[in-house]
Amino acid sequence: MRSADDHAEPHPAAGGAPSRFPLADPAGLPPDLAERYADVEERSGFLPNVFAALAWRPDEARAFFALNDALMDKDTPGLSTGERELIVVATSAANDCAYCVVAHGAIARIRTKDPTLADLVAVDWRKAPLEARMHAVLDVAVRLAVEPASVTAADLDRLRGHGLTEDDVWDVGAITAFFGLSNRLAHFAAIPPNPEFHLLGRLPRSR
Amino acid sequence: MRSADDHAEPHPAAGGAPSRFPLADPAGLPPDLAERYADVEERSGFLPNVFAALAWRPDEARAFFALNDALMDKDTPGLSTGERELIVVATSAANDCAYCVVAHGAIARIRTKDPTLADLVAVDWRKAPLEARMHAVLDVAVRLAVEPASVTAADLDRLRGHGLTEDDVWDVGAITAFFGLSNRLAHFAAIPPNPEFHLLGRLPRSR
Amino acid sequence: MRSADDHAEPHPAAGGAPSRFPLADPAGLPPDLAERYADVEERSGFLPNVFAALAWRPDEARAFFALNDALMDKDTPGLSTGERELIVVATSAANDCAYCVVAHGAIARIRTKDPTLADLVAVDWRKAPLEARMHAVLDVAVRLAVEPASVTAADLDRLRGHGLTEDDVWDVGAITAFFGLSNRLAHFAAIPPNPEFHLLGRLPRSR
Amino acid sequence: MRSADDHAEPHPAAGGAPSRFPLADPAGLPPDLAERYADVEERSGFLPNVFAALAWRPDEARAFFALNDALMDKDTPGLSTGERELIVVATSAANDCAYCVVAHGAIARIRTKDPTLADLVAVDWRKAPLEARMHAVLDVAVRLAVEPASVTAADLDRLRGHGLTEDDVWDVGAITAFFGLSNRLAHFAAIPPNPEFHLLGRLPRSR
Amino acid sequence: MRSADDHAEPHPAAGGAPSRFPLADPAGLPPDLAERYADVEERSGFLPNVFAALAWRPDEARAFFALNDALMDKDTPGLSTGERELIVVATSAANDCAYCVVAHGAIARIRTKDPTLADLVAVDWRKAPLEARMHAVLDVAVRLAVEPASVTAADLDRLRGHGLTEDDVWDVGAITAFFGLSNRLAHFAAIPPNPEFHLLGRLPRSR
Amino acid sequence: MRSADDHAEPHPAAGGAPSRFPLADPAGLPPDLAERYADVEERSGFLPNVFAALAWRPDEARAFFALNDALMDKDTPGLSTGERELIVVATSAANDCAYCVVAHGAIARIRTKDPTLADLVAVDWRKAPLEARMHAVLDVAVRLAVEPASVTAADLDRLRGHGLTEDDVWDVGAITAFFGLSNRLAHFAAIPPNPEFHLLGRLPRSR
Repeated sequence: MRSADDHAEPHPAAGGAPSRFPLADPAGLPPDLAERYADVEERSGFLPNVFAALAWRPDEARAFFALNDALMDKDTPGLSTGERELIVVATSAANDCAYCVVAHGAIARIRTKDPTLADLVAVDWRKAPLEARMHAVLDVAVRLAVEPASVTAADLDRLRGHGLTEDDVWDVGAITAFFGLSNRLAHFAAIPPNPEFHLLGRLPRSR
Repeated sequence: MRSADDHAEPHPAAGGAPSRFPLADPAGLPPDLAERYADVEERSGFLPNVFAALAWRPDEARAFFALNDALMDKDTPGLSTGERELIVVATSAANDCAYCVVAHGAIARIRTKDPTLADLVAVDWRKAPLEARMHAVLDVAVRLAVEPASVTAADLDRLRGHGLTEDDVWDVGAITAFFGLSNRLAHFAAIPPNPEFHLLGRLPRSR
Repeated sequence: MRSADDHAEPHPAAGGAPSRFPLADPAGLPPDLAERYADVEERSGFLPNVFAALAWRPDEARAFFALNDALMDKDTPGLSTGERELIVVATSAANDCAYCVVAHGAIARIRTKDPTLADLVAVDWRKAPLEARMHAVLDVAVRLAVEPASVTAADLDRLRGHGLTEDDVWDVGAITAFFGLSNRLAHFAAIPPNPEFHLLGRLPRSR
Repeated sequence: MRSADDHAEPHPAAGGAPSRFPLADPAGLPPDLAERYADVEERSGFLPNVFAALAWRPDEARAFFALNDALMDKDTPGLSTGERELIVVATSAANDCAYCVVAHGAIARIRTKDPTLADLVAVDWRKAPLEARMHAVLDVAVRLAVEPASVTAADLDRLRGHGLTEDDVWDVGAITAFFGLSNRLAHFAAIPPNPEFHLLGRLPRSR
Repeated sequence: MRSADDHAEPHPAAGGAPSRFPLADPAGLPPDLAERYADVEERSGFLPNVFAALAWRPDEARAFFALNDALMDKDTPGLSTGERELIVVATSAANDCAYCVVAHGAIARIRTKDPTLADLVAVDWRKAPLEARMHAVLDVAVRLAVEPASVTAADLDRLRGHGLTEDDVWDVGAITAFFGLSNRLAHFAAIPPNPEFHLLGRLPRSR
Repeated sequence: MRSADDHAEPHPAAGGAPSRFPLADPAGLPPDLAERYADVEERSGFLPNVFAALAWRPDEARAFFALNDALMDKDTPGLSTGERELIVVATSAANDCAYCVVAHGAIARIRTKDPTLADLVAVDWRKAPLEARMHAVLDVAVRLAVEPASVTAADLDRLRGHGLTEDDVWDVGAITAFFGLSNRLAHFAAIPPNPEFHLLGRLPRSR
């Protein structure tokens, strides 16, 4: 392991350290994680910094990716994969998390095929050009993120009224909860977004 | 599966439903989870409601318990198991989460062998009779919980200055982040604390 | 008089000082107060710390107890003594006051004969198993405690609509106002709850 | 008794009702209160509305005035009567209480003999032309009013460092606590300031 | 130019400096500004400190007064000049700006011919004796001042429903926005209100 | 004039209306504004929506652009044009203003020649890779934007200590104040950013 601690707040665009904590040598990863890391690096063309930051804690990394897989890759009529990413963008912005807003903003652009919507959701989801269903989803999700006691049974019923299934409704809460965790790890370890994320999904040829 | 949805805000002390979402039949749990559920129920004498609430989502339940095991059961010189529970109590109180304050307040009483400290930490950790190290830990943890962008590299150095290792410091952040997730799930699903938790660890004979 | 000032944040469970300010010798109390102090100590088995902390200011102590007597001991159809204590618990929790949450949580358990309800009200009154009348009462009381300008004539009418008399409605406001005072004195003087309060009313034999 | 309830938010400058609650007939007041009411009305030339609003609750009125007398009329080297009124103005402004800001702004003008200082303290005490001692006093008082858990033993020591005695320091906290009560009663009952207060102490001939 | 920087927080009532920044020699003002400054000083009997503070930046001063002229001097059925000043008072109070509350409180007293209303609006506009139209106006304006993302198309429709024209509605927003600028300049430069403002419009003979 | 009012929250990327208020026919603009509008449209390749939204109020438009010209185009050693844009990005993000964050994010990318820095400043300026001088500038500016009373003389001295001249320091405050106005107008009129802004300055060939 090598330590990132002697770098003062590294510049993410200049090869700075991806975490305030020790970085594991990829060669020492357990096989299941090594395979996943190699796979994501091959598909993306770079290793997202959250992977690098979690590598020294294999059990937490494994649970983290399991939650991601359970919540983010489903495409249901009530909540598409792109809409799931917009929940991440809106709640991560409410938590001031640059890593998640930039990285998941990129994924949202790719999955919604909309090059500008995620930027608008990140700053002011209320005025973003979304249908009523997604306004309701983001209203509940952002309140769960910043003032969780305010979410009531009536809020969940409102989501059901917009056509979300019981599973979709749970996913709204669980995605928000999972990124409540993710945002705080990214803040605590000061994980910067990889520079590549900023441009992904902005040009017609992207992806 | 049976649905909890037709109960209006059930009374937790009166056999109310442990979640706003469907409850899985324990007989249908995957074997690894079935074993864990049986084990916790035998050791505790009851099944904590968070187990019941997560059963319909086995992958999330598994990741949830993996995070718990990775973070909460370590007993290090810098951060004992009882002190880890106090981080949960303080940050869950900041998030107004009755399930986590009551359930982890009980565990904290048992692990710290102090029948009153967790109650004080839950309402005002600043005046709770804790040593300077734990005041620093809770100051950082509670800010990470409610205003995550305010946590700086200097805050982490302060924890190191109190004798926490690199692993201990990460655990402060990761415990707070994990219960940031847990608190939001408990709010969203309206998981009530089991009545048994309220008295645990309060009497000399407890445990 | 002896001073509490040279004790650094005493541990309340270890015989620590009940106040940051001078403590009056009970022998020097005016007769009316001496009688009240002896009476409460005999009935409770211990002298609640707020009594000790106020003793050096007899005029304020007298007014403080007069307000308590005028507001807390009435048992009306619209607002029972137990419900009055729950107002204290909810608003004192909103003000982060450990003394009042713990001490009045104990009294609430005794008066409501419910060993768990006060704990739930202290953390998240919104999900506590209360009838609609008490949800309305606590909604108004907590807003009066933390954002007083937001309470409107319509809020008072809502309480009347739940069957509270003119006197009951005033009491909701006056109890909240009185504990707004009490919470701030307890914070300022750092009055710790007596350890005895934590267990009161939790066991069938209590009281 | 006559009820004020059928008046919709009366105009205070137009003879509107002094409270949302019943108003007691002055003729029915207990003798000690009747004497005090007559006295204040004679000295002021009008009956301040808080007297009218409290009349239907003689025990609370008596305790309220006792607290006022115990805290507001002392003139010590560490805290003059005018400075005590400025604590009321600053903390009542933080609580958005028009009755207390206007009524005690008038008293502050008279007691400090400064026709403009109270207006400045009401809006932004930080920039008001006060000496360092009073800046420290108002910093502690306003935090006790709006975020009471943030007041520490170090804050009290700072006040002692500015020459306040143990009694003066307590008074800073007790005045803030008492007006925490008073502000909430005035909000709850919607007590308007008497129009006469607005001009008091503004002209050389005032008083 | 002479500098105000060596004065520590000057007392505004004692001839203190009107700004933390350099003060331009009036003789050096461009002719159009010189004329305006002379005119306002002649009409008011004194030069309001915001004029003095802006003099070293003629282009900004000119734009500032142009915005004032475009927004504040119109007298429409939906929004009188006095009501425009009350928007300034309420939003400036929400921003804790003593200069604007005191100076525009004076202008509001003169224009509304009401000697007490502005004081009430400054502390708690919700209880101030205003008609429903102005309650709606101030509700929208104060939210735009402190939580601008919360203002919706429905809020604007509500103002139209109270008879405000398209121009009047814009003016509500633009006045609030302009004093959002003005309040921040006054805070940043620590511009004190001239002592003369405190008494203006309070006496029958005023103006 | 044509009205934008019958469009429900138009999609900015789909030719939606640039304002909730009437849009002036460009042919009717006063000559000086007509020239400016033509010039900006020619240089940018499109007319930024804030120009379209302000056209129906020529006096306000003129003052608005005058403030922009006085504050944003200066390139001083203490505060470059790119750094001025970053102040706009950080404070506009604190005000949740999508128009200003997206439009001035684009200008910041062009002027700083950094394709990713503005995105980081928009979400969490504290962790953005900036030198100490700019951290101090943004700390003061963001507090002035959201909690203006908290800015003290010591804050201004800190900026001077980082080499800002008296003019630079004023500009920090005045830029923040001006965009305090601009953000509120953009919220009130619901001005969407032109789609072109999202990609500007992201590619090497940009500009």
